[in-house]
Amino acid sequence: MSHDHPTLQLARELISRRSVTPDDAGCQQVIGKRLQALGFNLETMLFEDTLNLWARRDSDEGRLFCFAGHTDVVPPGDEDKWQTPPFTPTDIDGILFGRGAADMKGSLAAMVVATERFIDKYPQHAGSIAYLITSDEEGPFINGTTRVIDTLEARNEKIDWCIVGEPSSTDYCGDIIKHGRRGSLTGDLQVWGIQGHVAYPHLARNPVHQAAPALHELAETVWDEGNDAFPPTSFQISNLHAGTGAGNVIPGTLHVCFNLRFSTESTDEQLKQRILAILDKHGLDYAIHWTHNGQPFLTDSGPLLGAAENAVESVTGRTPVLSTAGGTSDGRFIAPTGAQVLELGPVNASIHKVDEYVSHQDLINLTDMYEKILYNLLVVQN
Amino acid sequence: MSHDHPTLQLARELISRRSVTPDDAGCQQVIGKRLQALGFNLETMLFEDTLNLWARRDSDEGRLFCFAGHTDVVPPGDEDKWQTPPFTPTDIDGILFGRGAADMKGSLAAMVVATERFIDKYPQHAGSIAYLITSDEEGPFINGTTRVIDTLEARNEKIDWCIVGEPSSTDYCGDIIKHGRRGSLTGDLQVWGIQGHVAYPHLARNPVHQAAPALHELAETVWDEGNDAFPPTSFQISNLHAGTGAGNVIPGTLHVCFNLRFSTESTDEQLKQRILAILDKHGLDYAIHWTHNGQPFLTDSGPLLGAAENAVESVTGRTPVLSTAGGTSDGRFIAPTGAQVLELGPVNASIHKVDEYVSHQDLINLTDMYEKILYNLLVVQN
Ligand SMILES: [Zn+2]
Ligand SMILES: [Zn+2]
Repeated sequence: MSHDHPTLQLARELISRRSVTPDDAGCQQVIGKRLQALGFNLETMLFEDTLNLWARRDSDEGRLFCFAGHTDVVPPGDEDKWQTPPFTPTDIDGILFGRGAADMKGSLAAMVVATERFIDKYPQHAGSIAYLITSDEEGPFINGTTRVIDTLEARNEKIDWCIVGEPSSTDYCGDIIKHGRRGSLTGDLQVWGIQGHVAYPHLARNPVHQAAPALHELAETVWDEGNDAFPPTSFQISNLHAGTGAGNVIPGTLHVCFNLRFSTESTDEQLKQRILAILDKHGLDYAIHWTHNGQPFLTDSGPLLGAAENAVESVTGRTPVLSTAGGTSDGRFIAPTGAQVLELGPVNASIHKVDEYVSHQDLINLTDMYEKILYNLLVVQN
Repeated sequence: MSHDHPTLQLARELISRRSVTPDDAGCQQVIGKRLQALGFNLETMLFEDTLNLWARRDSDEGRLFCFAGHTDVVPPGDEDKWQTPPFTPTDIDGILFGRGAADMKGSLAAMVVATERFIDKYPQHAGSIAYLITSDEEGPFINGTTRVIDTLEARNEKIDWCIVGEPSSTDYCGDIIKHGRRGSLTGDLQVWGIQGHVAYPHLARNPVHQAAPALHELAETVWDEGNDAFPPTSFQISNLHAGTGAGNVIPGTLHVCFNLRFSTESTDEQLKQRILAILDKHGLDYAIHWTHNGQPFLTDSGPLLGAAENAVESVTGRTPVLSTAGGTSDGRFIAPTGAQVLELGPVNASIHKVDEYVSHQDLINLTDMYEKILYNLLVVQN
């Protein structure tokens, strides 16, 4: 009976915990117990308000495969708008409802059950298996994956292959594998003029007028053409403010916030230099504060991609589509260490919304895919 | 003793009344009583919260000369910052301090005393004398001079010559006569795009990007070259807003507020058409709300200008400079009826600030100038 599948049971146990970012609410302890029973060594990394779990089980000196994910969920919003209580996992007609069902407590459950089954069948597999679990993926991502990675890097502990359990799919689990993500760079620009009265423009300098040609040029610039895996780098102004509210005052300052999503054809340093050159060319008096939200990464070949494609095909009978579209994920922190990184998880239609759900079949299939990936990498290839 | 000059006495009486816009606080009654004693017919025009006085004394069927001014003052702000209480007229070393001393209760007092003296000397003068006094010049100017003028126009009552008592001077009373003002046109522009996530720019349309080239063109456009009396028309963006505050959302709307101060070389209709053509050329999806704050006007010849220049010269021994610089005044509502309009009043250095003041000598001289203007127009020229 699929309703009693151990992945569903564990998913329900995790959903019932109100782990709104950055509160783990005991989820990592539930997972840790299961992994410990399999021989994993647990390492809890508490950074400020964020609980992280680094768990590792070594079979030999070979490659390190890692499951990565997060136990935190976004707030449920107005709980009265939910058909079923968000933290009471509820099954209706083969669908499991609850906050985190798709993003990503279902994936965590599938990882654990897949690992249990795999180790039960292949206790002498090659290589090592690790878990990198954070409770700050939906939040400011300051004390989560990025600090665990810093810790691992400091002791030269390298992940070779990583599957992130983010909900990558559109229609059924496995139809899309995210094999990379664009980089993200945010700029916070202040342009200074001289405030004055509109009746005396010769005594003022309007920063909006001064910046208009620069903004025009920034909006029209072709940063790169993209490539097979990535669309062209895009620049978007997200916020723009000037003025006191009074209609007769020339503003003294213009504030512009912009974001670039960039392909592997550009680096953040190149983009910064090109933007500064445009601002300088237009003679602006400005200051800029950069927030670098992640380098782009791409896993377009190699054992991990082959293992994942094969796993999806063998479970679903269909070939997955590779995509780099969409927002950022914690994969951006793992890939720069040299790891191959893929994202494979359930359908994302309901994530961050009311009545978040995942189908029983997707979680069962995802469990099989994760087990098959372990098998492909740690048994077949070694 | 100049300290007991009747203009100073009346100025003090007006300053002691807390007539912050639109509250007249009885000032018009004080003035009206004095005019009534001279044979003026008083007409009180109360529009909403704004008290206006139209007073008129006819000698014959000749030309109508009008003194125009306002009894309201801008708020004093933090009264503790004043050296002397703002509504307690205080004389120190030949200077009268108090809110409204320069803008423009001193001028009102000078007008009344000049009229009293003139009528005493020339009771059989030619033409007519009128007063147009509002208590909403510093405010939204909706129920003040503009509605009085509407009323006069409706009954075909025409002002031929008008002296507005606004503080026109820079170093001493009469050094500058304002013989015109630029027009003012305000546009409130909404540009619509399609809101979206920065990660999916192809699903959104950024109104900031779309508008940037149009704003650039508007800021660079030469609207006209001005002329001898006016500087070139100027365009200034005063307020600019877009964005939700979130760094990952492409804004759905851009809000731009701008103002034009325009010379007599352009009309508001021409400017509107040119701006719409630029917005259309750049393919923007927009709506615009216009606020027309006044046509430009110019009094560059004629009996009024001659009378005023002669009056300044005979009192100060120096020739006044003619200027159209600075903000708007209620003259913009009077001039379109065909009246010749000039502004002549005290030094404006302290207006709208703490410790507003006027010198005794300026008010005494201004009284003499106003009396001389009446004489030049209603005795000499008729
Ligand atoms: Zn997630
Ligand atoms: Zn004034």
